Amino acid sequence: MPSESEIIRMIRSRSRRRCGPGVEVGIGDDAAVLKPDLGTDLLFCSDLSVEDIHFRTQWATHELIGRKAMAATISDIAAMGGEPRFALASVALPRGWAMGLIEQLFSGMFGLADDLGFSLVGGDTTASPGPIFIDTSAIGVCGRGRAIRRNNARPGDHVYVTGDLGGSGLGLTLLGQGFKLVDDSRPLDQLNSARQAAIMRHLAPAPRVQAGRMLGFEGLATAMIDISDGLATDLGHIAEDSNCGAVIHGELIPLAQALKDLSSTGMEIDSVKMALQSGEEYELAFCSPADNVDRIRNLSETLELPITRIGEIIRKPGLYIEQDGQTVSLDTRGFEHQI
Amino acid sequence: MPSESEIIRMIRSRSRRRCGPGVEVGIGDDAAVLKPDLGTDLLFCSDLSVEDIHFRTQWATHELIGRKAMAATISDIAAMGGEPRFALASVALPRGWAMGLIEQLFSGMFGLADDLGFSLVGGDTTASPGPIFIDTSAIGVCGRGRAIRRNNARPGDHVYVTGDLGGSGLGLTLLGQGFKLVDDSRPLDQLNSARQAAIMRHLAPAPRVQAGRMLGFEGLATAMIDISDGLATDLGHIAEDSNCGAVIHGELIPLAQALKDLSSTGMEIDSVKMALQSGEEYELAFCSPADNVDRIRNLSETLELPITRIGEIIRKPGLYIEQDGQTVSLDTRGFEHQI
Repeated sequence: MPSESEIIRMIRSRSRRRCGPGVEVGIGDDAAVLKPDLGTDLLFCSDLSVEDIHFRTQWATHELIGRKAMAATISDIAAMGGEPRFALASVALPRGWAMGLIEQLFSGMFGLADDLGFSLVGGDTTASPGPIFIDTSAIGVCGRGRAIRRNNARPGDHVYVTGDLGGSGLGLTLLGQGFKLVDDSRPLDQLNSARQAAIMRHLAPAPRVQAGRMLGFEGLATAMIDISDGLATDLGHIAEDSNCGAVIHGELIPLAQALKDLSSTGMEIDSVKMALQSGEEYELAFCSPADNVDRIRNLSETLELPITRIGEIIRKPGLYIEQDGQTVSLDTRGFEHQI
Repeated sequence: MPSESEIIRMIRSRSRRRCGPGVEVGIGDDAAVLKPDLGTDLLFCSDLSVEDIHFRTQWATHELIGRKAMAATISDIAAMGGEPRFALASVALPRGWAMGLIEQLFSGMFGLADDLGFSLVGGDTTASPGPIFIDTSAIGVCGRGRAIRRNNARPGDHVYVTGDLGGSGLGLTLLGQGFKLVDDSRPLDQLNSARQAAIMRHLAPAPRVQAGRMLGFEGLATAMIDISDGLATDLGHIAEDSNCGAVIHGELIPLAQALKDLSSTGMEIDSVKMALQSGEEYELAFCSPADNVDRIRNLSETLELPITRIGEIIRKPGLYIEQDGQTVSLDTRGFEHQI
């Protein structure tokens, strides 16, 4: 069982001496010392991942667990139209963990930092008498006054989502049914490929940092949120905070390929419902005035990322779905963890 | 059992609409939006408090637990010579907690924020299948290049501590022996007063923000740390990171009054050892060149806070204590939580 200072030494050696631009002092002092960018606002947020609530060690590698715990916070920076710059990780680990496992956990976090260009500059480690806890916090930046909030959507705005939806919820369902992440490279048939794609979608989400930043930089979104609790819940937050409502066109929701593949091969699944309720997708849902259609299409092409118009903001409060010629009111409870 | 959004609503209503200077968007969006101060460096740190490792609900009110969890992080900002500005709190709570308890926990955190002039701007709440977890993170500021690190102490520097030591460790010992925090206002005899003082010292530490900030502002300290793991361990960090050693004069260590009172009334206790090993004191230990003696005395008077010279930095690595005419090598392990 490594001591706290042995863990810090390991993490310190794993982090580059001066992690990235703006890091004057990284891991190992009482606090990190950072040089803020000039002319920006700061974004500040955290996200807590708890074993057996948010993840299971039987389902994922420790590297994926660390990576996803960090991705959740970085996705919140993306959802404000910001760029992640610095992050901390506080982890509580059951006694008896070997250094190798701790290294894997941090390797996942450092890996995401390297991929997305931010620096992991500190945190805290302690023992846990119960489950694993990982709290990640991050500082991001955006242009002065350019943060994209939830409360500025206006009736007539189009509602968009990045990427596709339902994959994460499908992956979670499959993991719950006993399907496993396959970690070798044997070729898989179409059915098992689709299962693996869904499982990976759940275990290794990619925060939409570039899309969020560009939407913020170009001032294209009136309101934005990342889909962590499900499209219905999260778009519901935008509608409520903006004092308006939203209507989603069911047939326009971009469904994850794995969801289409598995529902076409007989898996009993309500794809649209799954796409509405699937949490931890970490796609962005945003609103944009109707006359931005061309600019959003261009952005989608530049980023090589599908950005799909799925509905509109309306004056009438509430969330509605239009499907098969009918419009029905939608329960906004998607994926909220009751405590 | 309140839902996550009910908790957020409660916290949101408790926080002032625009918490303090620099808070553009506080609690309730994906991330807080903050205006950084001009001409400062940022300090960034977190601290994790775990039930039954760092605190027990039988020993403290929920308000004190929340306050102390936040104080630990703010103390790290103080230890860099900084001023706390913004904080987050991520808490995992056992299912079944009533809103009243959650309010008390946050009330402790908001109380510290109000007292010390920083803003609690966000965080995360989730269920815990085990103990309570509270991770607090903070952004502080200090003048450009003025952060006080651990690695710049030089042979000949004097070693100082703020306040007095041993009270927190004594309080922890008493709590372990079954003494309780008394929450009514009945008058206590001297013995029980001393016990209560020690217990309160353990449960309600006061981060030395003003002292830390002034030491940073006036450039008086070459190295500084807050005493969270015990003087021996923490001064050991300064010595090691500065590639030198330190000698402490046992008789100069300022002992907590409660420690003196209780050891004089027959409690079997090695006061100096307690003062060396007592963790969670959140006093500051710092090093300063010998010619700053007068300025440090002035600072102590201005702040009405004892600042005591307890030793010197020496060339020879290691930590030593001079007591009763003998100099012995000191174990730097004070209060580190093994995991």
